[in-house]
Amino acid sequence: MNNVSLTNISKPIKIELSEFSEVFSESMKSKVGLVDLVTKYILKQKGKKIRPLLVLLSSKIAGEVNERTYRGAVLVELLHTATLVHDDVVDNADKRRGFPSINAIWKNKIAVLMGDYLLSRGLMIAVAGKDFDFLKIMTDTVKRMSEGELLQIQKTRKLDINEETYFKIIADKTASLFETCCEIGARSASDNAEFHIAMRKYGEYLGIAFQIKDDILDYEGSAKLFGKPIGGDIKEKKITLPLIYSLAQSTKDEASKIKKLIKSGSKKDSVSEVINFVHAKKGIAYAERIAKEYAEKAKRCLEPFPENASKTSLSTLIDFVIERKQ
Amino acid sequence: MNNVSLTNISKPIKIELSEFSEVFSESMKSKVGLVDLVTKYILKQKGKKIRPLLVLLSSKIAGEVNERTYRGAVLVELLHTATLVHDDVVDNADKRRGFPSINAIWKNKIAVLMGDYLLSRGLMIAVAGKDFDFLKIMTDTVKRMSEGELLQIQKTRKLDINEETYFKIIADKTASLFETCCEIGARSASDNAEFHIAMRKYGEYLGIAFQIKDDILDYEGSAKLFGKPIGGDIKEKKITLPLIYSLAQSTKDEASKIKKLIKSGSKKDSVSEVINFVHAKKGIAYAERIAKEYAEKAKRCLEPFPENASKTSLSTLIDFVIERKQ
Repeated sequence: MNNVSLTNISKPIKIELSEFSEVFSESMKSKVGLVDLVTKYILKQKGKKIRPLLVLLSSKIAGEVNERTYRGAVLVELLHTATLVHDDVVDNADKRRGFPSINAIWKNKIAVLMGDYLLSRGLMIAVAGKDFDFLKIMTDTVKRMSEGELLQIQKTRKLDINEETYFKIIADKTASLFETCCEIGARSASDNAEFHIAMRKYGEYLGIAFQIKDDILDYEGSAKLFGKPIGGDIKEKKITLPLIYSLAQSTKDEASKIKKLIKSGSKKDSVSEVINFVHAKKGIAYAERIAKEYAEKAKRCLEPFPENASKTSLSTLIDFVIERKQ
Repeated sequence: MNNVSLTNISKPIKIELSEFSEVFSESMKSKVGLVDLVTKYILKQKGKKIRPLLVLLSSKIAGEVNERTYRGAVLVELLHTATLVHDDVVDNADKRRGFPSINAIWKNKIAVLMGDYLLSRGLMIAVAGKDFDFLKIMTDTVKRMSEGELLQIQKTRKLDINEETYFKIIADKTASLFETCCEIGARSASDNAEFHIAMRKYGEYLGIAFQIKDDILDYEGSAKLFGKPIGGDIKEKKITLPLIYSLAQSTKDEASKIKKLIKSGSKKDSVSEVINFVHAKKGIAYAERIAKEYAEKAKRCLEPFPENASKTSLSTLIDFVIERKQ
């Protein structure tokens, strides 16, 4: 059994990750003081950096990390940062990674504009590098991410969501960017189209497993230092896999009682009751099983690649994604 | 003297404009019901369409409108629509063109995501058409627009703004998109680099005149059916050209009294007092003079072009921009 930690996973690309961090900070610089102030604040909050990690490893499994790989990693991380900043406006969130969110400190106004700024910076870097294949992949991803979120909102309003819709939503809002990271990484290092397709698929399955795990964590009781508090999704009336399964296992009366509880608002008691219901119906265990299935699918995508340290890391990353506690 | 109306100005490209409208509606279609609902609502509110008009006329003054011209026009109008939707979140506006704003009906959440969606759709069309020159111009413009707005916010907070900063802000937040429209139009129809540069300059000067006029309209007493109410900028503590000039013409005591009034909030009396001050100091007349100077500069940019109906329209458009009442 490998040591399932991001530090261990990052080993084969340790030097490249620190090079990436420098290029990334550089890419955010602006002559406007306020922009610089906000970007410095963003840079202080070091996230898990899973997306640049994916780009770098997907490059190294297929060839060598090069200039184009770094541009790709910066592009995805800028886009990801932009969507986080916009998401916090969208979700009215006042915390991000344990720090006050941009919108909490500087208000929605600045958060919306900063998101636009970061997105355009990412695209500019791809344009300047003539990475037109990256641009094609990336603009399609931005569309899928916003459409996925909008579909989720549309469905949330009616508490009307089945497994099929759930998978469509998470494929678009989450997995699409994972796909993009892996495809961009592979493209930067190899012309082998089979590698591109395999890594894209790997990213898709990994992303789906990642989001299912995220949704499971919303139901799990362990204290979390960072991230969303337990039951956050229920309060926002987001119906995710554990609940979809549990509702499908219920009588009509049980289901409508639970839906009523969710509709009634975000009182602590009703949130606990929904969580207990999902545990009783084994919704968590089901979601965990499905996440594992996607993890297995992701692992199989790595088969065409030669054995190397990056391949081992990409495999361990799958375990990390479904075993993580936050 | 020409008939200074948009209908008259549009005459040389009447057929092309209606073709544009169809392609534009088509470009917004989505399989997600909520997205379609919001885009249909946006399409119902017909704006002045000055930006696609600029693309089409800038194409026709230099050559013939073609597929690439339409893609360019759709790209700029999608981006413009995206920024309007985000702007209403940024400004907390509840009206747009006399209709309730997207954020007022569907909340900030959907407005932010819809803006991202529209922006990505525009960029995708440029990618699909392999219009990489458009992409380069456009991503740079998105960056300038967001940086310009952020610089304005930064300066607004301290009520610290001089003419130099004012011109930097309006060049970035407004004129950059006008430049883009004109350059994209010219590029779509001609390979003559002189034409590209001349039209880009025309757009820049026209955009600056347009924004100065917008800022003047905030001080003018005529009842306006649509658009921002009088004094809106003062309430938001935005210091624009008429006020910058007036403050520069004042004693230190006068200036600090006016700044205090602005800081003190948005009471009706203090807004009126600031408006009266600007009128007394001839700030409006000054701003009008400067807008006219930019209008003249814009006219001179048209000189290299052969005489044709589009050239006449582009010239009349300059008059329209500085003579409009809303």
